[in-house]
Amino acid sequence: MEHDFNNKTCQFALQSIDDALYVIGGKWKLKIIIALKSGVSRFNELQRTLGISAKMLSQDLKDLELNEMVKREIHPGPPVVIDYYLTNHSKHLEDLLASLRNFGEIHRGKLKEEMAGI
Amino acid sequence: MEHDFNNKTCQFALQSIDDALYVIGGKWKLKIIIALKSGVSRFNELQRTLGISAKMLSQDLKDLELNEMVKREIHPGPPVVIDYYLTNHSKHLEDLLASLRNFGEIHRGKLKEEMAGI
Repeated sequence: MEHDFNNKTCQFALQSIDDALYVIGGKWKLKIIIALKSGVSRFNELQRTLGISAKMLSQDLKDLELNEMVKREIHPGPPVVIDYYLTNHSKHLEDLLASLRNFGEIHRGKLKEEMAGI
Repeated sequence: MEHDFNNKTCQFALQSIDDALYVIGGKWKLKIIIALKSGVSRFNELQRTLGISAKMLSQDLKDLELNEMVKREIHPGPPVVIDYYLTNHSKHLEDLLASLRNFGEIHRGKLKEEMAGI
């Protein structure tokens, strides 16, 4: 990779990465978004799909809601049902999700090649 | 966002995200890569640029080296000097870094607009 950054550009890049990681950093948030994108919308179903603890899922959904990535819809019952959906703002993550998946696939491919070569 | 995933595609996407986060997840790894990309190559300089503890930086550099994102070059001294560089494999992160920065900028812009509207 070339040294195509000067120090100021570097600081600006670091700031943007910070801003992004503030919203979608951590082990689960992107995975929650992928599950929602696939049509899963109930808390329990999200928990089962991801294998995440209720406490973590609840906290991360709240954070994602605060950052306007996720909206919550309450259908008064009985029984009361709560659904989670992605917002329009979350569409700005499309490129990021695609490049993350792409990198994951490339990296896994590389590991496989290396293991085949041993 | 449309429900354009079926369950199998969802599981595959989750797996790829896992693979990617295994390599570059956490608070610092992408930021270390950005600093290296900007031409910073010494341990102390990385520490100063990022404001990261020596213990964290050392651990993350080791992980990045194991995953072939970073290579270490030892120049026998005296004094012995160790430099860190990005590998060719790390170039596969270009798109990801660009979309992460882009999202960070969009999100910050949105917050600013909302604050201006209050």
